[in-house]
Amino acid sequence: MLALVLDRSSRSSQAAHVVTDRPAPERGPGEALVRVRVSGVCDTDLQLARGYMNFEGVPGHEVVGEVLASDDPSWKGKRVVADINAGCGTCADCMLAHGGGHHCANRTVLGIAGRSGAFAELLTVPERCLVAVPDGLDDDRAVFAEPLAAALHVIDEFETIGARKPERAIVLGDGKLGQLIARALASQGVATTLVGRHAHKLALAASAGSSSARIETFLEADLPASHRGAPLVVEATGSEGGLAQALALVAPRGTVVLKTTVAAKLTVDLAPLVIHEVRLVGSRCGDMERAVEVLASGAVDPLPLVEARYPLSRADEALAHAGRRGALKVLIDVT
Amino acid sequence: MLALVLDRSSRSSQAAHVVTDRPAPERGPGEALVRVRVSGVCDTDLQLARGYMNFEGVPGHEVVGEVLASDDPSWKGKRVVADINAGCGTCADCMLAHGGGHHCANRTVLGIAGRSGAFAELLTVPERCLVAVPDGLDDDRAVFAEPLAAALHVIDEFETIGARKPERAIVLGDGKLGQLIARALASQGVATTLVGRHAHKLALAASAGSSSARIETFLEADLPASHRGAPLVVEATGSEGGLAQALALVAPRGTVVLKTTVAAKLTVDLAPLVIHEVRLVGSRCGDMERAVEVLASGAVDPLPLVEARYPLSRADEALAHAGRRGALKVLIDVT
Repeated sequence: MLALVLDRSSRSSQAAHVVTDRPAPERGPGEALVRVRVSGVCDTDLQLARGYMNFEGVPGHEVVGEVLASDDPSWKGKRVVADINAGCGTCADCMLAHGGGHHCANRTVLGIAGRSGAFAELLTVPERCLVAVPDGLDDDRAVFAEPLAAALHVIDEFETIGARKPERAIVLGDGKLGQLIARALASQGVATTLVGRHAHKLALAASAGSSSARIETFLEADLPASHRGAPLVVEATGSEGGLAQALALVAPRGTVVLKTTVAAKLTVDLAPLVIHEVRLVGSRCGDMERAVEVLASGAVDPLPLVEARYPLSRADEALAHAGRRGALKVLIDVT
Repeated sequence: MLALVLDRSSRSSQAAHVVTDRPAPERGPGEALVRVRVSGVCDTDLQLARGYMNFEGVPGHEVVGEVLASDDPSWKGKRVVADINAGCGTCADCMLAHGGGHHCANRTVLGIAGRSGAFAELLTVPERCLVAVPDGLDDDRAVFAEPLAAALHVIDEFETIGARKPERAIVLGDGKLGQLIARALASQGVATTLVGRHAHKLALAASAGSSSARIETFLEADLPASHRGAPLVVEATGSEGGLAQALALVAPRGTVVLKTTVAAKLTVDLAPLVIHEVRLVGSRCGDMERAVEVLASGAVDPLPLVEARYPLSRADEALAHAGRRGALKVLIDVT
């Protein structure tokens, strides 16, 4: 089959190869074989191409597809998205009601660890990871389910701690991740301030007015001092200074959510964390069913974030485009 | 009065001066005038001497004393300890039932910020900060109320998040802070493992058997792999590598409590925090009433942690002693 492949030679050249002779993944027991329709390029894919996780094979984990074969016949022919974490299905972590398997020690992760991904014509995934896409939700929006689930997961920490949703939040970073998180928070009724460095991107967020709360935007240098002391600050800049800025903006006893895995080590003064008794929480993947519901309801419309699309035969160009400084979402049309 | 003083000249020489002509602090409305009986040297005092917080004046915040004068006559003559955070008494933070005023924007902090401290014959403190010391609790134990309150505060995060107390915990660092935290956790029924680099200090903790749970101890190199995955890890090493070690030992979705404010910036890889969705929480001061209760009950006996004592007239030597590598608690006898 046609697929984008990362291997050692691609890593040395930092270029992914499109091949035509990739063997199709074989469906195991309890797994569905899915024909990919559209996939999206995430910064993690770019990191994998640079050697992160020592990944070799087919990357890609933002995907909407159609089930070709499955043990459970009711899935066949359905349009689906999938939780990318495929846990063992039997351990304590896999038994959790929400996010079960996300921390299973024996999990594979679609297109990231131990499982061939979505920049290909076909993929396999455990049936228990599948979430059906309702008819009213088109492919180009449904393909945002995975990153939107992760964006919505930012406020799960507040449910975990039995606290009310924060009344307001500051999101640092106007890239595609920050944009999506700001929309996710606004869709949940959180008064959201997006802080970035690009007027045109901030304008994009400011006009995302269909959701229940408006997103307020500021260029970094213009953020009023009155905005300091937020109960929730989300660091989505991916830059070295982001965490220090978040710690400067969060209220005492407040929460900073770290979304980006900056591959390099950070140098940071954590004294403010202790003095102000701040909670710093790492946040990764979220609940796919909720994300599909939010997309289907129209509370978050991710389409304005699509910057470009490429056919699978030019997936290498799609990655190169996504790697351009400041690029928003790049989609890959597979079928 | 006799007092230990930090000023610019002491900072340049990194030596604190004992003076005899320090003016006694003046009692304001709602404040008590306290004659100091015993005070304890904390690493924060050593940092202040090196210029932290640009503090000038009398340091010292671990103290037991006797009330000489107060607006409320019932305090007079009482032996007391005090919450070191003196909030404004009227803001939202000051209204909190537990830890009220600890994050008041206008607070003074005894011997640390805006308020003369306990390495002196006399101090003043708001009456609402006072906690009476019961007759059965002697000065040398009561003087540990402030650091023990901070040590017990480590598990308050679990109450805050509505979770059960962790079943087990790993404390990194066998210095006086780690020793006290391990004892505090054990006194609350948490199966506690103390990890350090000094066999004789670990032996001290292992023999602290009066509390409800025994403290298990390991030299850092000997910690069995089976101990990884702890729901709570407390970083109390004060060293640069401590946080990375804590992140390596904590369970996915677990909590790392950062107790030490390493004055220097840390260089740390926070990717594990995101991937494993770990919560990193800064923890500073705790509930003084609870600490006094725990000390009075005998559940924590801090006396074995006292390494040396000096009269106030030699308080400069007390600080120098406390600054020796590996020193445990140094007390200052004031009256």
